[in-house]
Amino acid sequence: MGPGENATPDDNEMAFELGRAIAKQGWITLTGGRSFGVMEAAMKGARDANGLTIGVLPDSNDQHASENAQIRIVTGMGSGRNYINVLSSNIVVVLGMAAGTASEVALAIKSNKKVILLNQDEITIRFFKNIGTYRVMVAKTVDEAVLQIKDYLAVHQR
Amino acid sequence: MGPGENATPDDNEMAFELGRAIAKQGWITLTGGRSFGVMEAAMKGARDANGLTIGVLPDSNDQHASENAQIRIVTGMGSGRNYINVLSSNIVVVLGMAAGTASEVALAIKSNKKVILLNQDEITIRFFKNIGTYRVMVAKTVDEAVLQIKDYLAVHQR
Amino acid sequence: MGPGENATPDDNEMAFELGRAIAKQGWITLTGGRSFGVMEAAMKGARDANGLTIGVLPDSNDQHASENAQIRIVTGMGSGRNYINVLSSNIVVVLGMAAGTASEVALAIKSNKKVILLNQDEITIRFFKNIGTYRVMVAKTVDEAVLQIKDYLAVHQR
Amino acid sequence: MGPGENATPDDNEMAFELGRAIAKQGWITLTGGRSFGVMEAAMKGARDANGLTIGVLPDSNDQHASENAQIRIVTGMGSGRNYINVLSSNIVVVLGMAAGTASEVALAIKSNKKVILLNQDEITIRFFKNIGTYRVMVAKTVDEAVLQIKDYLAVHQR
Repeated sequence: MGPGENATPDDNEMAFELGRAIAKQGWITLTGGRSFGVMEAAMKGARDANGLTIGVLPDSNDQHASENAQIRIVTGMGSGRNYINVLSSNIVVVLGMAAGTASEVALAIKSNKKVILLNQDEITIRFFKNIGTYRVMVAKTVDEAVLQIKDYLAVHQR
Repeated sequence: MGPGENATPDDNEMAFELGRAIAKQGWITLTGGRSFGVMEAAMKGARDANGLTIGVLPDSNDQHASENAQIRIVTGMGSGRNYINVLSSNIVVVLGMAAGTASEVALAIKSNKKVILLNQDEITIRFFKNIGTYRVMVAKTVDEAVLQIKDYLAVHQR
Repeated sequence: MGPGENATPDDNEMAFELGRAIAKQGWITLTGGRSFGVMEAAMKGARDANGLTIGVLPDSNDQHASENAQIRIVTGMGSGRNYINVLSSNIVVVLGMAAGTASEVALAIKSNKKVILLNQDEITIRFFKNIGTYRVMVAKTVDEAVLQIKDYLAVHQR
Repeated sequence: MGPGENATPDDNEMAFELGRAIAKQGWITLTGGRSFGVMEAAMKGARDANGLTIGVLPDSNDQHASENAQIRIVTGMGSGRNYINVLSSNIVVVLGMAAGTASEVALAIKSNKKVILLNQDEITIRFFKNIGTYRVMVAKTVDEAVLQIKDYLAVHQR
């Protein structure tokens, strides 16, 4: 999860690497499905490594979906779909920060999902640690995040 | 789309064949994702022919998902997820009838989706024809439904 | 509940009388909140008799809300809000018929709500009786519907 | 908006005062509708001053609604209803902090709603200012919040 329009070039670059790394592990990349920002970069990375991508879209059709979203879930719920993004994920990795992204982190904590804050600033980490101590992990690099996911899945694998 | 608990053995048998036929065409089978009735039978059929299956679940976790639902979208919205089922489908094929199924047909017509009423009784056909003349097609067999889908996709392929 | 654009003049006239009758009983009128058709007529009737009206809106703002919707719930969910309309009602009275309306009747039956089919044709009555025998009542006039509501509330009053 | 189970006694006391103050202005108090924490205290305060209260509930029935929620919107969407809370509000006042509450602040910023952070700590204020500079106001007391709402409504009154 991460910002669309407001994503920085660094966010996008790291998101591409994250998508690639997820795909290489055989995992699925689920995003908000739009054609810009962290969503797009992560799905592009996943596709680049032959991974499967799911986009959970805010609109009532898939006209604005990214071409890199292979499976398209059309919700017609606007930002209300953020809750579905979170519930449908095993682990939520967060890269970049904006209002929609923050709602996803908060809903993930509320829904007892594990959240990895990737490359986030101190204020963001402290805020989310305050409201979800046991749910929130911190990672600086994609490799670190992938290791945390592996550790988590080793214990919680479905 | 079709009933869960209230599906008849005939509905389930035909749903299995429908799932198989969809998979053989290389199409994706999307259902409500639960482990009984038409949903389960259609996904089992699709898996039997190596097709991809998506289950859009009503609960807030995937505990009650069918094992045949490969991609699981967790909505936490109860029957509110019926709208997402419909919006996410290219074509809605309806087999068997119950309250939840009827809501999906109605929402599909409302959302300008094509609906195929498969093996339905006269009252059902007349009711839905009354509220959605141009959206509703009728088929007696799985083969007939598959032909209708092919015709539709030939014109509307994305 | 009833159609918007596709409502007949007869539907609208009866909806106005229904809204008035509901308000006179001290009950609240809840509709889809838009400014046309059965929704608008029922709320206008309710306001005419000093009743309280709630509109549960499909859009993500209340720009297109009826002026007669006093309480405005903004869902941003499109027709997905039909489920909320139904869950938030004690009894669902249905006047006129169209795709959105049919989805509300079906979701009401699915959610074990009592439904009164007011002034509906034979096909509609038979279809919904088939999928929800014990949930569906039939009325020809507003007076008859009000009596049925009173009987129901006498037993199920919260 | 504010936490349920995790609300502090101070949060609840201030929420009661806020509900009273809102009611005295003739405004409506809309909350998540549950019978504990900030939601309950604010609605109790509003009722104490003869104000109108709306509860937008997460469950698919109103069994767990607060007795102080006069109008009950039943969503069946779990925390997905947080988006509806925000869209249906003119201004979002936030008292206390927890994961669900944080999601409401974030969704409010995302939806271009005005948010008043009432009696919040420095980390919380800095985090939300970072993602929604122009949307976020800060208040220390109920009186201050009421003044900010008045100023806002003076300009944006519908």
